[in-house]
Amino acid sequence: MKQREQNNRYDEIDYLIILLRGVGQVMFQQSAWSGLLFLVGIFWGTWLTDVSYVAWGAVVGLFVSTLTGFVLRLPATEGEQGLWGFNGVLVGCALPALLGNTTAMWLVLVLCAAMTTWLRDGMNRVLAPYRINSLTFPFVASVWIVLLAARAFYHLPPAHLPDPVLPVADAVRRIYPWYDYLGAWVKGFSQVFLVDSTVTGLLFLLGLLWNSRWAALWAGVGSAVGMGVALLMGATTADVVSGLYGYSPLLTAIALATVFHRPTIRSACWAFVGIVATVFVQAAVSVALAPVGVVSLTAPFCVVTWLFLLPRLRMDDRARLPDHSHWEGK
Amino acid sequence: MKQREQNNRYDEIDYLIILLRGVGQVMFQQSAWSGLLFLVGIFWGTWLTDVSYVAWGAVVGLFVSTLTGFVLRLPATEGEQGLWGFNGVLVGCALPALLGNTTAMWLVLVLCAAMTTWLRDGMNRVLAPYRINSLTFPFVASVWIVLLAARAFYHLPPAHLPDPVLPVADAVRRIYPWYDYLGAWVKGFSQVFLVDSTVTGLLFLLGLLWNSRWAALWAGVGSAVGMGVALLMGATTADVVSGLYGYSPLLTAIALATVFHRPTIRSACWAFVGIVATVFVQAAVSVALAPVGVVSLTAPFCVVTWLFLLPRLRMDDRARLPDHSHWEGK
Amino acid sequence: MKQREQNNRYDEIDYLIILLRGVGQVMFQQSAWSGLLFLVGIFWGTWLTDVSYVAWGAVVGLFVSTLTGFVLRLPATEGEQGLWGFNGVLVGCALPALLGNTTAMWLVLVLCAAMTTWLRDGMNRVLAPYRINSLTFPFVASVWIVLLAARAFYHLPPAHLPDPVLPVADAVRRIYPWYDYLGAWVKGFSQVFLVDSTVTGLLFLLGLLWNSRWAALWAGVGSAVGMGVALLMGATTADVVSGLYGYSPLLTAIALATVFHRPTIRSACWAFVGIVATVFVQAAVSVALAPVGVVSLTAPFCVVTWLFLLPRLRMDDRARLPDHSHWEGK
Repeated sequence: MKQREQNNRYDEIDYLIILLRGVGQVMFQQSAWSGLLFLVGIFWGTWLTDVSYVAWGAVVGLFVSTLTGFVLRLPATEGEQGLWGFNGVLVGCALPALLGNTTAMWLVLVLCAAMTTWLRDGMNRVLAPYRINSLTFPFVASVWIVLLAARAFYHLPPAHLPDPVLPVADAVRRIYPWYDYLGAWVKGFSQVFLVDSTVTGLLFLLGLLWNSRWAALWAGVGSAVGMGVALLMGATTADVVSGLYGYSPLLTAIALATVFHRPTIRSACWAFVGIVATVFVQAAVSVALAPVGVVSLTAPFCVVTWLFLLPRLRMDDRARLPDHSHWEGK
Repeated sequence: MKQREQNNRYDEIDYLIILLRGVGQVMFQQSAWSGLLFLVGIFWGTWLTDVSYVAWGAVVGLFVSTLTGFVLRLPATEGEQGLWGFNGVLVGCALPALLGNTTAMWLVLVLCAAMTTWLRDGMNRVLAPYRINSLTFPFVASVWIVLLAARAFYHLPPAHLPDPVLPVADAVRRIYPWYDYLGAWVKGFSQVFLVDSTVTGLLFLLGLLWNSRWAALWAGVGSAVGMGVALLMGATTADVVSGLYGYSPLLTAIALATVFHRPTIRSACWAFVGIVATVFVQAAVSVALAPVGVVSLTAPFCVVTWLFLLPRLRMDDRARLPDHSHWEGK
Repeated sequence: MKQREQNNRYDEIDYLIILLRGVGQVMFQQSAWSGLLFLVGIFWGTWLTDVSYVAWGAVVGLFVSTLTGFVLRLPATEGEQGLWGFNGVLVGCALPALLGNTTAMWLVLVLCAAMTTWLRDGMNRVLAPYRINSLTFPFVASVWIVLLAARAFYHLPPAHLPDPVLPVADAVRRIYPWYDYLGAWVKGFSQVFLVDSTVTGLLFLLGLLWNSRWAALWAGVGSAVGMGVALLMGATTADVVSGLYGYSPLLTAIALATVFHRPTIRSACWAFVGIVATVFVQAAVSVALAPVGVVSLTAPFCVVTWLFLLPRLRMDDRARLPDHSHWEGK
């Protein structure tokens, strides 16, 4: 971003970097290369299952939400770090993946992606006094609104959403071969972007490794422990092998162990408890949303990360890592 | 209010003005004449459909909530502007319109109307640091409590509430003659007070015009655009022609375009996006509440107005209009 | 706690006192003797109905949540007052009483009890600017999470939870003999700990009387008025005679009349309105949770107490009682 420093303007490469960082920030990585690997993963995974338009949705969402930040003249330092893009790219994955591929859906995708940028700014303003951050909740909130509204609007068919049901205790447990659990561990990575693919998961793991070995390690721990706790509690095995119990604990793990605390024994224990708690919150949110037929997205990760950052713990070793200071409440 | 300035006491006319202003403030108009026109509209509309007791409920609610402010000795400057009354008058419309006409309902109406006054004070205290306001949410919250409780209490029959259902995507679309859409546009005004009547709507429009042409204009834009977006998305047409997609966007429009921002091109665009967003939040809240059989009231307006006021937008032209400064968080 | 003052360490008796105070604080009593009476009540009541393991759950929860405060090195002054224990003891009563008696349940009980301690600290940090307190909400939130998750996990059977249903207005009213209503009044005390027993209720009343006659008086008023309002509104009589409409108003009464305000005519009136409001919130929360099959716990008490403490009322006589100052937001 040399160019910018000289004449205070961006050139094309700068914009590209900003956009790719936006993808990387979904997993807290302010790295264009990580973002590129994530994006390749999304395209590959959706192409394999013949839903490439989901990947294009991600690109549109990324572009719109980043652009919105510039149009609204929000503080540009945030934008340069890719912090305007990560909610948008998630919106762009979620809406085409969960709703029918209609014109109305694409219009709403644009509105929804744009909205995450000012929701983020508004929420951060509210959370700033408590030194916490909106995380991916602007994505969660705006997509929840659209998914609920979809049941009232003919042109927004809830094509891939579960039917609204009264939750019953009917966890179905079956034996799967061991490699399915290995696949589930990898899919824990890809499900962050609502993609159910091992190839995508491996590319995400690679993207994490590129920028931060700690983040990759903890993401792996999060996905594995999340899966393990879910199995231990007797969750529906089909959900476990789809990676649905992995992606939220994975994000909690990166956040608590590597972003908001320096990696130490103490913060590692704290992150471990957070990972376990995320599994229960994941199950609870899914059950609570069953009667309205909406999915939990990354809400469990947000809730647990907040609950674990709020207490005034005397972590003497608590310090912000230089690269991630911007994630603290602004 | 000359009298008061001289000897620091109110006479009968002062009290009447305070009460009527309370009605006007439902649509942000601190004008006793506007309030009077609104009240006439309520009486006329409910008389036409033989439910005049709804209008009397509005009067009782207005009186009780205003009185409560004086009894609790809350800051009198707020009361004089009618800010104690508007939640009460809405409670007084909503409970008789939605529940059965029983003695218990009237007792609860009194409690509920009174409660809005201290809920408003408490909520405003919480929201003040963020420079936003409780708007009509004290009305929404306290009426939601009563409507939910109604299913547990024999003497509070949920006579005019929808049955609790699991939401299914079954928007029913039919062709209506053009004048029904014109009627829907006018009913968008009347539905603010839960009245389904064009006569009432016209009197409300008149009441707005009396005090502020900007407010009337934007209310009209809000009702029309709300209706248009709902039709574009394929909402149930019967709901659209009842004005149910108009009243919340209408309030958002008045709030964002004329109350909290000076009317400029920039704030007009912002209000327009807010109006569109309100339609989706309206649908989302309705679907989310379907399993408990409760209606959305003005919650969508509150939520969207908050989400659109929180971001730290650099609206250089942002300034409070003198008449409405009291609406900012106190 | 003399020992501690001399050498800044606790001996065994100190720990015992801290634990018992934790039980007492469920009803705002910082008294080890009150706590002991409450605990005896829990053991007696659960032994009568052959579910003694519920009482052992209470002991485990109490121990774990208190220990957590020490391990996390949270401010010890709070711990010494028993403020780390009361949420844990409630978790320890609720989970065994509502879920099946499985190994997984006990593991979750430990996690859940521990979590209340840092949830409390985090929530108090958020609520401190508004001078309110988390009350028993950390218990409510963490138990709700587990109860919801229970429908997704085979090893957490929701054995004693109601089935998820769409709420219908079907209050069943029958005539009960007068002594059943007297029993209901006493059970209002025991239901605070989810115990349905008159013996337990009497021991709780005794425990209150031991430490504060005002608290005992107001608890009695709360239970009676709560029951009366529920009957007046036509609630299901079976619920009333189980004390289910008594325990939350009882807690509201103690909080508003004796803890956060000095007992005066004005605060007495205020507490009375709060008791009545709690009955409606109790019914509303129960109905709202019906579709997910979860119970209201003490949430209605928390909500109403917050709503009644937030307004800036000019209670000139408002002053904190010396013994309870720690209950104000920290």
